[in-house]
Parts: sequence; C-alpha cells; structure tokens
Amino acid sequence: MSGIISTGEKRLVLVSGRAYPGLAEQVAESLGTEVSSTTAYDFASGEIYVRFNESVRGADVFVLQSMTAPINKWFMEQLIMVDAAKRASAKRITVVAPLYPYSRQDKKHQGREPVSAKLIADMYKTAGADRIMSVDLHASQAQGFFDGPVDHLWAMPVLVDYVRGRIDPEKVAVVSPDAGRIRVAEKWSAKLGNCPLAFVHKTRDTTRPNVAVANRVVGDVTGRQCVLVDDMIDTAGTIAEAVKVLYDAGASDVIVAATHGVLSDPAPQRLEESGASEVIVTDTLPIEEDKRFPHLTVLPIAPLLARGIFEVFEDGSVTSMFDGVA
Amino acid sequence: MSGIISTGEKRLVLVSGRAYPGLAEQVAESLGTEVSSTTAYDFASGEIYVRFNESVRGADVFVLQSMTAPINKWFMEQLIMVDAAKRASAKRITVVAPLYPYSRQDKKHQGREPVSAKLIADMYKTAGADRIMSVDLHASQAQGFFDGPVDHLWAMPVLVDYVRGRIDPEKVAVVSPDAGRIRVAEKWSAKLGNCPLAFVHKTRDTTRPNVAVANRVVGDVTGRQCVLVDDMIDTAGTIAEAVKVLYDAGASDVIVAATHGVLSDPAPQRLEESGASEVIVTDTLPIEEDKRFPHLTVLPIAPLLARGIFEVFEDGSVTSMFDGVA
Amino acid sequence: MSGIISTGEKRLVLVSGRAYPGLAEQVAESLGTEVSSTTAYDFASGEIYVRFNESVRGADVFVLQSMTAPINKWFMEQLIMVDAAKRASAKRITVVAPLYPYSRQDKKHQGREPVSAKLIADMYKTAGADRIMSVDLHASQAQGFFDGPVDHLWAMPVLVDYVRGRIDPEKVAVVSPDAGRIRVAEKWSAKLGNCPLAFVHKTRDTTRPNVAVANRVVGDVTGRQCVLVDDMIDTAGTIAEAVKVLYDAGASDVIVAATHGVLSDPAPQRLEESGASEVIVTDTLPIEEDKRFPHLTVLPIAPLLARGIFEVFEDGSVTSMFDGVA
Amino acid sequence: MSGIISTGEKRLVLVSGRAYPGLAEQVAESLGTEVSSTTAYDFASGEIYVRFNESVRGADVFVLQSMTAPINKWFMEQLIMVDAAKRASAKRITVVAPLYPYSRQDKKHQGREPVSAKLIADMYKTAGADRIMSVDLHASQAQGFFDGPVDHLWAMPVLVDYVRGRIDPEKVAVVSPDAGRIRVAEKWSAKLGNCPLAFVHKTRDTTRPNVAVANRVVGDVTGRQCVLVDDMIDTAGTIAEAVKVLYDAGASDVIVAATHGVLSDPAPQRLEESGASEVIVTDTLPIEEDKRFPHLTVLPIAPLLARGIFEVFEDGSVTSMFDGVA
Amino acid sequence: MSGIISTGEKRLVLVSGRAYPGLAEQVAESLGTEVSSTTAYDFASGEIYVRFNESVRGADVFVLQSMTAPINKWFMEQLIMVDAAKRASAKRITVVAPLYPYSRQDKKHQGREPVSAKLIADMYKTAGADRIMSVDLHASQAQGFFDGPVDHLWAMPVLVDYVRGRIDPEKVAVVSPDAGRIRVAEKWSAKLGNCPLAFVHKTRDTTRPNVAVANRVVGDVTGRQCVLVDDMIDTAGTIAEAVKVLYDAGASDVIVAATHGVLSDPAPQRLEESGASEVIVTDTLPIEEDKRFPHLTVLPIAPLLARGIFEVFEDGSVTSMFDGVA
Amino acid sequence: MSGIISTGEKRLVLVSGRAYPGLAEQVAESLGTEVSSTTAYDFASGEIYVRFNESVRGADVFVLQSMTAPINKWFMEQLIMVDAAKRASAKRITVVAPLYPYSRQDKKHQGREPVSAKLIADMYKTAGADRIMSVDLHASQAQGFFDGPVDHLWAMPVLVDYVRGRIDPEKVAVVSPDAGRIRVAEKWSAKLGNCPLAFVHKTRDTTRPNVAVANRVVGDVTGRQCVLVDDMIDTAGTIAEAVKVLYDAGASDVIVAATHGVLSDPAPQRLEESGASEVIVTDTLPIEEDKRFPHLTVLPIAPLLARGIFEVFEDGSVTSMFDGVA
Repeated sequence: MSGIISTGEKRLVLVSGRAYPGLAEQVAESLGTEVSSTTAYDFASGEIYVRFNESVRGADVFVLQSMTAPINKWFMEQLIMVDAAKRASAKRITVVAPLYPYSRQDKKHQGREPVSAKLIADMYKTAGADRIMSVDLHASQAQGFFDGPVDHLWAMPVLVDYVRGRIDPEKVAVVSPDAGRIRVAEKWSAKLGNCPLAFVHKTRDTTRPNVAVANRVVGDVTGRQCVLVDDMIDTAGTIAEAVKVLYDAGASDVIVAATHGVLSDPAPQRLEESGASEVIVTDTLPIEEDKRFPHLTVLPIAPLLARGIFEVFEDGSVTSMFDGVA
Repeated sequence: MSGIISTGEKRLVLVSGRAYPGLAEQVAESLGTEVSSTTAYDFASGEIYVRFNESVRGADVFVLQSMTAPINKWFMEQLIMVDAAKRASAKRITVVAPLYPYSRQDKKHQGREPVSAKLIADMYKTAGADRIMSVDLHASQAQGFFDGPVDHLWAMPVLVDYVRGRIDPEKVAVVSPDAGRIRVAEKWSAKLGNCPLAFVHKTRDTTRPNVAVANRVVGDVTGRQCVLVDDMIDTAGTIAEAVKVLYDAGASDVIVAATHGVLSDPAPQRLEESGASEVIVTDTLPIEEDKRFPHLTVLPIAPLLARGIFEVFEDGSVTSMFDGVA
Repeated sequence: MSGIISTGEKRLVLVSGRAYPGLAEQVAESLGTEVSSTTAYDFASGEIYVRFNESVRGADVFVLQSMTAPINKWFMEQLIMVDAAKRASAKRITVVAPLYPYSRQDKKHQGREPVSAKLIADMYKTAGADRIMSVDLHASQAQGFFDGPVDHLWAMPVLVDYVRGRIDPEKVAVVSPDAGRIRVAEKWSAKLGNCPLAFVHKTRDTTRPNVAVANRVVGDVTGRQCVLVDDMIDTAGTIAEAVKVLYDAGASDVIVAATHGVLSDPAPQRLEESGASEVIVTDTLPIEEDKRFPHLTVLPIAPLLARGIFEVFEDGSVTSMFDGVA
Repeated sequence: MSGIISTGEKRLVLVSGRAYPGLAEQVAESLGTEVSSTTAYDFASGEIYVRFNESVRGADVFVLQSMTAPINKWFMEQLIMVDAAKRASAKRITVVAPLYPYSRQDKKHQGREPVSAKLIADMYKTAGADRIMSVDLHASQAQGFFDGPVDHLWAMPVLVDYVRGRIDPEKVAVVSPDAGRIRVAEKWSAKLGNCPLAFVHKTRDTTRPNVAVANRVVGDVTGRQCVLVDDMIDTAGTIAEAVKVLYDAGASDVIVAATHGVLSDPAPQRLEESGASEVIVTDTLPIEEDKRFPHLTVLPIAPLLARGIFEVFEDGSVTSMFDGVA
Repeated sequence: MSGIISTGEKRLVLVSGRAYPGLAEQVAESLGTEVSSTTAYDFASGEIYVRFNESVRGADVFVLQSMTAPINKWFMEQLIMVDAAKRASAKRITVVAPLYPYSRQDKKHQGREPVSAKLIADMYKTAGADRIMSVDLHASQAQGFFDGPVDHLWAMPVLVDYVRGRIDPEKVAVVSPDAGRIRVAEKWSAKLGNCPLAFVHKTRDTTRPNVAVANRVVGDVTGRQCVLVDDMIDTAGTIAEAVKVLYDAGASDVIVAATHGVLSDPAPQRLEESGASEVIVTDTLPIEEDKRFPHLTVLPIAPLLARGIFEVFEDGSVTSMFDGVA
Repeated sequence: MSGIISTGEKRLVLVSGRAYPGLAEQVAESLGTEVSSTTAYDFASGEIYVRFNESVRGADVFVLQSMTAPINKWFMEQLIMVDAAKRASAKRITVVAPLYPYSRQDKKHQGREPVSAKLIADMYKTAGADRIMSVDLHASQAQGFFDGPVDHLWAMPVLVDYVRGRIDPEKVAVVSPDAGRIRVAEKWSAKLGNCPLAFVHKTRDTTRPNVAVANRVVGDVTGRQCVLVDDMIDTAGTIAEAVKVLYDAGASDVIVAATHGVLSDPAPQRLEESGASEVIVTDTLPIEEDKRFPHLTVLPIAPLLARGIFEVFEDGSVTSMFDGVA
C-alpha cells in the first residue's frame, strides 16, 4: 500500500490573552509547562493584533482569557486568537473562559432583547472553537448553547472547603440573595449537612438584572451564621442589601461566598461597609489592588483549571473531578 | 426591464399532527379558519406517513403538535410534517409545541448526559422550521437553544386571572414546590400584590428529576391560602408531597396551578388524595377522561395560541400580548 | 518549543440502545470486548433518559440501535445517545442502524410528501454522528443522504451462502416480488451462476408502499425452485401473494430470503400459510418468540457488524469485506 | 411607529447559461416574457466570466442551463450565475437543470467511489440555490440530496401522449432495457392500460454503468409492438442491444422512448442501425444536426418547463400538473 | 383552499448603535423617517444591554454602527443588536458599517496570524445579518468574505467632486502613499482626466501595517499639485511622511483625500504640521472637536448611505449609483 | 473500563487528478513515496468517473490537481476526488491547487458579477476539503475565503534565487506590469537589495481583466535591467506590451518572471516577439511542447510542494519555510 506511515503524538499548547496573564502563568505552572509565546498589541484605532510566536500545527490548543473589563475587547481578542489558531492548523481548540461572558443575558427578560450568552457561544463556534471550558455558569442551560462539548467546572468544592473551616455546622444557614439563585444555595446546604436554607424575596427590575430592591428574608436565620452565596459579585448592590437584611432578621454573622469577583465600582466600598465578616471569591478575574479590602479573601482558581485542562488533553474524566456532577 | 411582475399575497395555513387534533380545531376556530387537511397514518412497522392534501406553496405554515404520550412518536410526526412542508415550498414554517418536548432535560445534571432540549431545537431547525412557538418553557434559557425567533407565550395571565377569583389577597401565599421554581412563584407573587412567598426545601435525586423527597417549608404559611405553582405536573409526586407538607406547616388551604397537565399515572390519584382544594391546568396537552378527577379545572389554551399565531402572521407584536415581557 | 507532548492511543467503545440489547452483546462478544454500561429509562411522560456510566472522552464510539417497534422511540433514544456522546467529548461517533429507519420513504411518491429517509440522515448528522453503518439499504442512494461516510454492509453473502445449500443450481430461479427490487434479484442471480430471473408485475398504490396487488409473473418459473428475494419483510402481504402467484405459475418450490425481518402482524401467519418451504431472514431486528413460526430460519448478523466495526476502528477496509462492492 | 412602509411586488426573472440558449428562449416565449440579458464569455485560460446586465435585486430568479457536453463547464457556469445572483440580492434562486448532471452517479457502486449526484446538489446549495427544478431524475431519491424544495417534473405524459398515437393498445408491450429501469416501465404499462411488461436481463460492469452486456428477454414479447423506455440515451449501447434482443425474441416492432437525448457518439449510428422503427426523445438537451437521424423524433420540453416555472412563481401547484404525483 | 389570505407590505426600520448616533439621524432625515427607538446602556461589568422599543417583526431592518474607538465594544453592540433583531422576527437584517472593522487585517502577512476581516464577516453572518453595506473597503476582496450580498458603496465620487474644484486639471498628479494603494490612485487619475500617477516607495514593517518608513517618490511630481489619496487616515504617519517626501520631490502643493478619518492621536498634529494645504475626509466616523484642525474638511456621508439603503429597500439598483461599478 | 485500546498511526496518501500527473509523480518522488493508484475516465456524456484503488480510510489525503485547461473539468474532477475521499473515510483531506482556480475573480469589478474565487473555496469546503494548499495566490485575501487552514506557499524564493544569477544588482530595476501588482514588485525589490521600482500606468477594461491598454512607465528605468514580475502570464498581452514600453523608456534589458505559466495562445508568440531576453515561470501548470519557445525557462515547483506537504503531514512548520512570511 502506497503512502508514508508515521506515529502520532499529541501536544498540549496553552496560550493566553492579555486580560490576566498571571492566571495563565499559574495554570501553566500547575501543568508543569509554560504559556506559549504570542505577540499582541492594539493598533491606534483600537483594533487588536495577535500572532503566535510558536507553531501550533497539530496541537491541542487551550486559549485562556479572563473576562474582566473592558470585556468586549478581551472577548474579541480571544476570538481573534481562536481564528489564528484555526488558520495555523491547530488540531483542536478549547476556549477557556473562567467567567463566561454575558452569562447573565441567557434569556429574553422582555421582548426584542438579545440572548447574548447564546451569541457568545455562536461566536466561539464560528471562530473555530471545538470546545469550551468555563467555571460556574450563571445558568447551566448555557451548556446547551454551544454545539460541542462544554467542560463545566465547579468552584464550589474550593469555596466550600474553605468556608467549612469558618463556620459551626450546627449554627450555619445558607442564604440566597434572591429567588433565582436558590438552587445553588440548595447545593451548598447539601454540602454543609443539609443545613437550613433561606432567601431574600425582592423585586427585580427585569430590564436591568443587577439593579434590585431587597425586601424580606424568607426562612429563619435568627441567631445563625449565614453563608450568603452567589455565582458572581458585580456591583454588590444585591449582596450588600442582603447582608443588611440578614442582620436585621437576626443573623449572628454573615459570610459572603461567590465564584466570580467582578467587583465593579462601588462593590469594594459596599462590601466593606456591609458588615459581612468575610467576603470570599476566586480569582477567575484579576482582583487588582484597588478592588481589595480588609475582609476580602481570594482563593486561587488555577489548580482547578489546570486539572480540567489536563483531563481534557489526556482523555481522562472531568466528571470524576466532581463526583459525577459535571 | 425584462421579467414578469406580480403582486404578492400571504397565506396562513394551520396543519396539525394527530396527537391532539381538537386543540388545532379550537385554534382554527379562534382564527376564523379551518385546519388544513392532511393524510397521516402509521405503517405496520410503526413508521409514520404524512401528506398534505392541499398546496402549501408560498404559505406561512404553522405545524401544531401537542407533546403528549407517546411523545417520541408525536415529535417525529411533527418533524416529518415540517420536512414535507419545506419540500412543498412553504415560505415560512413555525413549529407550535405548546409544551416543549424534553424541556426538563435542558442541562447536564451529571457528566455524560445529553442536553435533550437542545437536541430538540436542533432537530426542529434541521428539519426546516424557521420559528418555534411554545408556552411556558421550563427554563427561559431554552429560547437560546434555537437559532431563530422563539415566540414564548405565557399562560400565567390565564391562570392568574382564574386564581384571583378563588383567593383572598390578604391571606394568600405563593409557594414553589422546590428551589428551582421559585422564580416563577416570585412572578405570581408580584401579580398577586407582592404576597408572601415560600418554597419546599427538598432533596432531589439529580439523575431522575421527577423523583423527589420533600422536606420542610421555608417561609411562613401558617393560616394562609397557599397557591402552589409549577410549570408542569407530571406524576405529581413532588406536588402531592408539597401539598401535604404545606398542610402540616399550617396552611389553611392549598390550590395547585400549573400550565402543563401531563398527569402521568398515578398523578390523578395522588392529586385527588393530596387534599388540594383545586388543581388548575391548561389543555396544552389533551386531558383525557381517565385523567380527570373532581377537583381538576382545565382552562383552554387555544385562544392564547390563536392570538400568538395571528400576531406572527400579521407582523404584529407578541410582546404586546404580555405587557412587554415576551 | 513549549507545551506537553503525549503519545496518542485510540479506544473503541460500543454502546447500545434498549431496543435489542442482545444484538449488541453478540457484537461485543465477536469483538472480544463488552458493551459499555449505560443508564437508560423512560420518564412517566415518555421522555427518555440516558447516561453513559463510563467515560467516552476521546473514544471511537459506536452507538448501536435496532430499529424495531416502537421505531420512533428507539430512533430518538439513539439520537439522545449520540448527543450525550458528543457532549461527553467522544472523538468520533458512528451510528449503527442495521435496518435504516424510514428507509422506504426515500423519495416523494406524490407531491407534498416528506423524504423521511433524508430527514433521518440529517437528524443523525445534527445530533453529532460522524458516520453511519447500516445493512442492506432499501435504496443505495440513501448513502448520499448523509454528508459523511456511510459503511453499507451487505447481508447478501450471509444469505446466499445459506441458500446455496438448499437449492439445485440447475433448477433455481431468482424472483423479485415487484419491479422495484429486480436489481437485488439480479445480483442474487449473478451469485447463483447467472440463473434465470423473474419478477411479479403488480399494481402498487403509490401512497401506501406496503399495500400492493400482485398480478402475474414475468419470466419463466415453471418447474423451478424459486428464491424470492427482498430487502425486508414487513406485513408480508406482497411476499405471500408472490409465493402464491409463483406456485400458480408452476414453481416447484418457493424459498423466501430477506435481510430485515420486520414481521409486523400478520406476517408470521401469512408466511406460514403461504406455502413457502422456508423463510430466511437475519436478526438485524429482534425476532421475538411470537413472530417465529416453523419454517422460519434466522441467521445471525452480529459477526458481520462486528467485522465492519473492527475495520472502521482499525482503518482497515470495509470494501474488502465484499470484494470491492461496498 | 417609525419606518417607511411600501407595498411589495414580486418579479420573475429568467436567465440562461450558454449551453442551449434556444431552450430558454422557448421557455420565455411560453411564459410571455424574455430571457434577461447577460454577458458571458470564456477567458483564454478557460475560466468563465458572467455578469447580469439587468438588476435582479429582489427578484425570483430562474437560472436555466442544459447539461450537454462539455458538461463540467456548463455546470460551473450555472454555479457562477447562481453566485452572481445571490450577491446581486436576488430574493430567491431556482436552478433549472432539465437533465440533472451526474444523475447516474447517485450511489456508490463500489467502495471508494464518489456520490457525485449528491455533490452536485451540495454545490447548488452552497452556491446559493434555494430550489432545484429538473425533469425525470435518474432515481427519484436524488430529490432527497437537496436540502430544499425540488420540483421534479415528469416528461412521461408528453412522451406517452405521443406514443399512444403510434401503437395498438392490444398489441403493445413495455420493455425496460435493464433491471434497474423496470419501475419506469411499470409506470408506462399502467398508463398504457396495464399492458404486458418485460425487461432485458443483462450483466452490467458495475464500474462503468453505460457499458453493458445484453442477455435475454424476461417476459413474453412475441408478436408484440415493444416500447423500450429509459430515462436517457447516452451512447445507446444498452438500448441498441436491447432492440436487437427484442427482435430476436420475436417482437413485431420496437419503438424507443426516452426523456433525455444525450446521444453521445456513436449513439445516432447505433440507433439508426438498430432497427428501431422510431426513437423519441425530448429536447432537454440540444439535439444538434449531427446527432439527428431519419427515425428520430424530438418533442419540445419548453412548455412543460414554462408551466412548472409559472406555478412556482405564482405559488400555484406543480403537483397538480401531474395528477398529484410530483 | 383553507387558510387566511392577507396582502403583504414591507417596512424599512433604521436602528443605530451608540457609537455615532448623529450619523443615523442624518441618514434618517435623508430618508424622510426617524431612527427607531432603542434602549441601550452598559452594565457595570462592561457588558452591553440593548432592547428595541418598537416592534421590528417582519421589517427590513438596517443596523447602523460607526466603527470608531472603542471599536471592539461598538462591534459587539452591533452584533447584539443583530441578534435581538433576529430573535424579534425581523424579516431581513442589513448591517451598515460605513468603515468595515478590521478591514486592514484581510490576509495573513505572516504565518500564525488571524484573518480578522474574515472573522468579522463570519460574526455578522452568525449573529443573523443577511447583508452588509459598507463604504470603500480596504480591499474589495473582503466582499467575498461574506456569504451573502455586500453593498459596496464608493465615496470616491463625493471626494472627487469636491477635489475637482480645488485643482487645476493640467497641473495635478495623483499620488498613492504606498505601493498597496496605487489601484485606488489609478481610479482617481482616470476620474481626473488620466492625470499623472505616482507613489511613494517605502519599506513597511509587515507585522505592524500602520508603522512605515517612507522612502522615495516613484513618478514625476515636480511642480505639480499632488492629490495624495488613501482609503483611511489612522495615525497619519505614512501620509504625513508622504506629504514631506512630495514637497522634497518638488510638488507645488499637496492635498490629502481619504474616505475614513480615523485620525488616531497624533494624526491631527501630524497633518497640521505636514504642510498639506487641505485634508479632506468624510464622516463615516465621528470627527470630534479634538480631532479637528484648521485645514481639515469633512464631507457628509449620510446622503450616500441613505440612497444606498433606499435602493436596497425598494429593490432598486445600487450598481446604478456608481455607473455600474458596485 | 470497557472497550478496545489500540495505538494510532498516521498515513500520508497522495492522489492526483488527470490534469498533470507528471507533477504528482515529481512530488511523490521528492517525498520518497508513490502516487496512490486511482481509476479515472470520462463517460461519453463528459461526466467524470473516479475511484481510489487503495484504501484511504483514516489517511491524511492530499488531492493534487493542476488547474490547466479545460479548467472547469479539472476542478470538477478534483471535487469528485475529494467527495470520494470523504466517503471513503479519509481522516483529513487537503486540496493542493498550485494555481488557485478563478483566482483573478476575487472581487466584483462591477455590480452583478460573481466572486468566483470565493465560490471555488466554498465548493472545496462543501465537497469535504479540510485544508487548501496553493502557490502565490493572486490576492492574499483569498486565504480568507476558505473557512480553514490555507497553506500559502511562495514561489518567489525559487524565482528570485534564479534571477539573482542573471542580473547586476547595481543596475537592476523591478517593474510591475500594472498598478495592481506593485506590492509583489515591492517584495522583489526588497529581496534584490531595495533596488528601484517602477510600474506601467495603464487603463484596464474592468469587465475583462486580461484585456489591457499599456500606457507609460512610472519610475525611472533608463539604462536599467528590468525584471518584470507578475503572478501569472495568461495571454501575455499586458506583459508583452509592458516589455515594449520598457524598452521605449530606455531599459537596457527586460527579463520576465512569473509563477504561473498559463501561456494561453498567443502568449508564446507574443513573448517570443516581445524582445524580452528571458521569460521565467514555474511548472505549477504543465508547459506542453507547443507552449515552449527559445527564451523560456521553466523552474520545477515539485520540491516546494513536497516540502509543504511533508510539513503539514508531520505537524512541522510551513511558516518556517519562508522566514515567517506564510
């Protein structure tokens, strides 16, 4: 039979956008390799230029970008990197977006709105991504937006492990800051021994999801250590109001735990002044100095990402990282 | 300039699968027309045959099917009808599935599961559907599964209007049977004057969403008329347990309201025996005699579907049917 | 050069739907492996749940389903399994449908009909199948319906080998039960030493392909052992009528041979009463006890499927299994 | 409501490739319009240039090309015209290919062959065609190759009407030149009063479908006027041999009728010398002077195409042109 | 025949992003209508929210955005608007991007680069755009990047008309600032009576297209009024250097004319100091006060866009706006 | 874990169309292998038949075709080969078209024209090509036409190396035959030590790109050895006229260098008579005896193609073949 026979090898390549290069370096370190070198800058017009300095031909490429502000720019940079990898003959391209961009725009709240989270998935696909890896999607349904595998990592084990050391399991209650997040709180409750559950019943302005009016606590929190959980903290308006309402309802202590620390201004001030005894987030987004405040704890997300990437590369099991739930 | 000039007209055609022809007839009657004639039967092997008896060339075709059991068969029939309409040169094809099939499989609860609700959307698209119309999706995110317009109708106004006449607004509480449905309950609460809200905190077996273990009521329902709300009632295990838990928690009365009455066996018996004073559903699915029981109220969904179809056909506004929220 | 290098391996995984698990077990046994474990059941509403119990990440997955009644259900189950495999990062997915569903609906017999066999191919593709494997397609053109490789296996060698031992090559004639199947009969004739060929000229109701009116034999069958061949036996109306017509035309004996034994009621009775001395099919579909009758011979198809799967997995040649004709 | 309102009109535009401009002119005449003006020529390198001289913006464009030799060139020209129409904002584009190119390559006869007829459909689709119109496809399954409406016109009524005047219904037999065409012959038989049917059993070299070895007649033709029917006559090897075999078998007369007169050399000579009393084709392809011979009758196809185009444009019914069978 | 018949109308709707609302208002005024009302703002995280305040169901929607800095944000906003229009059932969506974003990244200058201009086209397509309208593409080949109609408007007539009044046709020369733009200069020369042509031969750093090293003038410009033409002026480094080189080579006067005035800092200063007697651009991008300088002339582009939009809406001819060249 | 584990290998297979088999043989020889055997011929109707004689299952297949006349036929043959490879389960398919067909039709020169070069890319994609390899695209933008990797090889190093030995670097000038090709000339100038650059300012009939009217030389060529460069020589009208104009302008010598020698009639005569001292092309197209003339030099392209193919197969770097510029 004619032809040339050769044995196949596979190569993992990790490249990073410019939003949060430190995260990629930590992931690479966890993996025992280095971030592949790229050239990237902005033209005067604001258009982005990217080039890979090393060959990615035939490689299993992971394109990591952290979706911090200016988010539209970093998203475009990631798309451009995917396009470049596709045209440079990468074998497989996985987009790693620890915080999935536009994750809260995952449905039409009113008529004539976009479903931007679906648009994001379509953009990734069209640019050439074969797979997506993300941490704690705002709604798990977003997995269905992408026509391919989505590795949905859970930061909850990281957060729960940390929180467990701060609370008394007999006195704790898990609280959701609004009705939409109770399912997450329910999972926390299960992890913390089926402790009591509560939520804040509030009126939400449907056109602007992060502007809310907190109301009353549903569930009994009197004398309890409350763990207020959410997937992300943006301006912290809802969260800070919830802390206040919980203390008003008799909570003995309030700890805030969330995966994504967007911490848009004035979140640091609000959280600082809210009275929460500790605010815990991971660094899926860079937490710059000006966003830090005394009671803030930042847990590293890189080990989780590194393990996820390694399992994907080696055809291992991401599901097994989370006891079957991923 | 060469060519032949002609003026354009548009024609609405409504065709129906065999699952629930009565619903299509009611819709047609509301529209002031008739269901277009089709030939449909099963071959001995179980394969389905469908043919349109009238031309649909250039028409705006609405293909209505009610997703009752055997659901896989009726879904396939609807796909086959869409394929036939596409090949018969329909101008535009709208799938009308009042209950969206596999709507509860809208995310992976564990690893290595399908996202069947997305698969359904892809099947509709591939068969040739340009648009989908559905009522009360299990999760609004499913709108994003379809790459095209989704007209998401809300049955809540129909249900709320009816319930309002059965309750005392000063004494009512809205209850969600589990953590995942509180957002719907929150909307009911808003419609009923921001009345109190509660939910049942239960443990759910993640692999079998309709098998649940009810636990305790979170929120105060003592002496209250409880309106227990959900998008669908399947085997009624969760609902019946919730009714019981509510009475145990001191509820003075429990009314159940849900859009989709699947009422799989033994739902009628369970509901009958639950003690709920009334169970209200719409007829997005056929409610055969053997599913009916004394305290069941069935509200007609055809007028809502008819109005939605008419607005779509005439380039009106579906959004305006729901005060902007659709 | 940065990155992690690893050597690649490939893994064959065979999973099976619930329609005919015994077939998958036989195939696995022929391959020297086991069917991969899955969890599958129906919800009360009729919706299907499937989950793979083992990782299929990076694997070459073969999803086997036998298209017996209720055919729409088993087809949907197979689609759902393909979706799950895709989202679980299978490297390549091959649908194995020994009898291709809706294979007889491969063209429009009249206007405004679907082309359901094409719809089936599109559904497989959209769900995520990379390839299809099937046995004796009703029309070979259906290969063109799928935008990817179709491994079209021929059961004819299996059938011919068996029949050769039952006939006298000097006295045999091959007969097609209708005009549409003569090409298959022609191939049989070639395999049996270019023996005489005949067919039954009948009028067919174009809207219902399996309802037919047999007429007269074209070709000389007097005193001949007739091998009546077809791709499938459904209700056996056509076949039983053909047996009768052949005896009327002077056939000394009639043997029926077909690949797919659908044997919808009342096929067993009709065949039993037809006078055919033997009816031979393969078990591409399960032949339950209630379908069996004295003169029925069922040949195992598993060895053929197993060899086809192995050649596909090992980049061997399926073509060479059939002397170049596949 | 803001915006500009305007009433819509629709415009039919017929453009033609250079293969057989006379056919387009006849079609236009039947429609009562003119062929829209185009500029088309070959560059020295053989590349084709096409430009529409009139605006086709918003028009319902029919792109007619007759697939005569050099067939690859004319097919490419048609694709290029479709591309130009798409980019010039045509509203809808229908490819009119009276003889569908590569129609005989509609399946793999052996392994590692293309399915060129499917490739053709994909090329049309990708170039921008919304619909296909063709006459007497070699296999009706090819309708399923195109993901959109296919208007399959039948020339059989035209041919049958003509033949009916040449034969004695009591003495006629319909004959298929090989096993693969009997289904067409069966339809002829039905149209001619269920007259006797026969076919020539021959051995066919599977790699070269138009090279055949005729054998024996199956069915009784003694003393009968035989109408030998086929979809196309290419080199006429099979047909001429069949004519001879039929006379040998005692036919009193042989008339040949086929839709597409490819008449590749040496078809005219072979047919002339075959002894057939008349050879009847339509002009789906141009029949140049050098292809004509004394007993050849060419029936015009333009009226059929014109009617089909008009029904499509006016959202009439193509099905009704053929008593439901299209 | 069943169904409802209605006459069709069509409605033009113009919506605008937030980048340069004044341009949309001018276009609307030229069209005799108003810009349709939208709600749009940024969330604290930088994510964009958009909603149409009026129904666009069934409308011919034009989504105008001017690609000024921050360009990635405005591009994303336009995509989100397209998605919203698609999901709100717009009949047809045309993206109007007077300056096509990333137009200079239309090929790989080196290996492992993206082709960002193609990515942009794919993003538009995937979001739901049916058509693109743009002015003076950097390379006309970009028309081929979009799989649909591209209405490519030429601003040259606007610029040439103005320049013609400033020059003496006997003394003028047209100059390209580099080798890549000579084709445009050649067209200017033709419009100005086939006047002499020249270009600046320079070395260009291939990785950063807007950083250049001007060299020598090729062609004779001694004593001539030079019209230095380009498609866009970004930082004006190349242009300012070319003005200097032209004066050094004996030019009596230098006028600069370009379609797109990006005018990134320090362009205004460079142009001001270059010695060019006049710099002429159109307002495809907003020219804020801080970008304006004494010798700058800004010509309005709105009338051209308005006419293009009107021709598209009314199925007129865009080609005819430019004597066949569009 | 169930399943069968096997180690993977990869196999390079080179197949060739019939346009220029000698080129494939040279490439295979450079690679140290043989061209894989195929069966290919034309049917009488002009339709092409192709079959691979060896298995290509799982192979990395390169399908080479040289786009010489009749170009539409050879393009179709290549598509058919790609389709056959896809259906025969090739793992990856690379189209090798040394001269990209219809490369000059890469934009609309006027309204209502096609963008045939984009159509070609779409056809390759749809047929099943994963990648394209080509030499010296007419416009690099064409890379963006294909939604996948394009390996763009440069013949310039081959040509420059040869030309360098024929010229005196102190006396040479590089000349573009028209405004559109100056960018290529600029690159030549850089390679030849930044020598002077010139071009011929001519009027081009936009509807027929290879019919041109040469005018005057822009730039100083007096007493210089002129290297007239282009990507292709078709009828040589432009080139021959340019040679004449250069001599008229005082050139001491003119050498012509181009990658693709289409050499359509009357190119050989024109070039012979033009006075050019040497005409240099590569054999991306076959240069038959009747196209050869005394001053013609043909450089072999096979080594370049072979190296490109090998780098692609072995996941090496094509970019590194050209110092980063590919």
